[in-house]
Amino acid sequence: MEQFNTTPRNKVKRIPKRGHYDKATIYEILDAAFMCHVGFSIEGQPFVIPTAYGRDGDAIYLHGATTSRMLQHLEQAGMPACLTVTHLDGVVLARSTFNSSMNYRSAVVFGTATLLEDDEKMHALEVITENIWKGRWDEARLPNAKEMKATKVLKLHIESASAKIRTGGPGDEKSDYELPIWAGVIPMTTEYGAAIPDELLHEGIETPASVTSFFEDKKQ
Amino acid sequence: MEQFNTTPRNKVKRIPKRGHYDKATIYEILDAAFMCHVGFSIEGQPFVIPTAYGRDGDAIYLHGATTSRMLQHLEQAGMPACLTVTHLDGVVLARSTFNSSMNYRSAVVFGTATLLEDDEKMHALEVITENIWKGRWDEARLPNAKEMKATKVLKLHIESASAKIRTGGPGDEKSDYELPIWAGVIPMTTEYGAAIPDELLHEGIETPASVTSFFEDKKQ
Repeated sequence: MEQFNTTPRNKVKRIPKRGHYDKATIYEILDAAFMCHVGFSIEGQPFVIPTAYGRDGDAIYLHGATTSRMLQHLEQAGMPACLTVTHLDGVVLARSTFNSSMNYRSAVVFGTATLLEDDEKMHALEVITENIWKGRWDEARLPNAKEMKATKVLKLHIESASAKIRTGGPGDEKSDYELPIWAGVIPMTTEYGAAIPDELLHEGIETPASVTSFFEDKKQ
Repeated sequence: MEQFNTTPRNKVKRIPKRGHYDKATIYEILDAAFMCHVGFSIEGQPFVIPTAYGRDGDAIYLHGATTSRMLQHLEQAGMPACLTVTHLDGVVLARSTFNSSMNYRSAVVFGTATLLEDDEKMHALEVITENIWKGRWDEARLPNAKEMKATKVLKLHIESASAKIRTGGPGDEKSDYELPIWAGVIPMTTEYGAAIPDELLHEGIETPASVTSFFEDKKQ
């Protein structure tokens, strides 16, 4: 199982048993989302910006307008970035507030980015598009030259990463189990509602395969 | 309507019409979640860490173990932090990949933190607990002296903030409306499943008011 080395940067300090360093676990968490929070720092001031992404091997692609402050900053050589993805899976109500918690899966990725051009840039846009909505690249109108010029695409090379996962019910203090206090978990999930066609959609254009197959896959 | 001044730090550069600077809008986004991503920077390396929070006026409370690297760092005087909350509301499939987007509500907060003690610390823990699960503070066993000692609580003073919001359907290029391509929105929501009682719960302990009222409020 391929692992990231643990260093002070990526080591899960708090509750180490929740930490994971193998790529399979980390990449599964990354691949189950399409919105991350990117951290960068300008003259000591940190910024945390939500943005879409797609993973390809040991790299994460980010895109945006050429005027994006985040991308303009991260494309500078050697500029350190941190990218975090979090899935909230439940509220854990313990008998004590102290032991109350959340169930979650998070991945924290460290690396530096490089600017992509030409074929690599187009490939990255395909990866991001497909990560947001599988099958859409083959259905939508692809970027033209003007749009490509207005778009910046970065490849964040994953140098180091870790995952932190909590599952299961509350873990209370031994003496608290005798208290007449309810404890349990309220599960949380992200749900997708039925597709809402654009009001300006011409008659006769049917719901595409990417949408119908998404909801069919979900039912299985 | 009370507003934050716009400065280079909090100004929404990309698609300015999506930017909001009034407290009512920003605080509504903050109050609709209980998990944020906190950004801080140590020797130029940014870190983005998911954590629970609660808002009280123009401050956000954060808590964790006394050994938390994030809290140890942020409690240092004048250390700049960024705290971001994002709600994903939908996938926006435009006719072109370029105009495809997401519906979202995000709030980005800037400030510095101070360490809380005694009554203020306990109050902050109540605010965080109640933000995660309303009504729980009156049901659970409250922190004892040992747990208070093991817990660090910070007050992040909101100095500056902005919100960015996208709603509605796709906005395509004029010429793209003639293409035979489906466009629309797939709504996304966070859903809460039925409470799962702890396996070790003693018989006769009923589901508490905080849980039953949560699901009753949702049905309305």
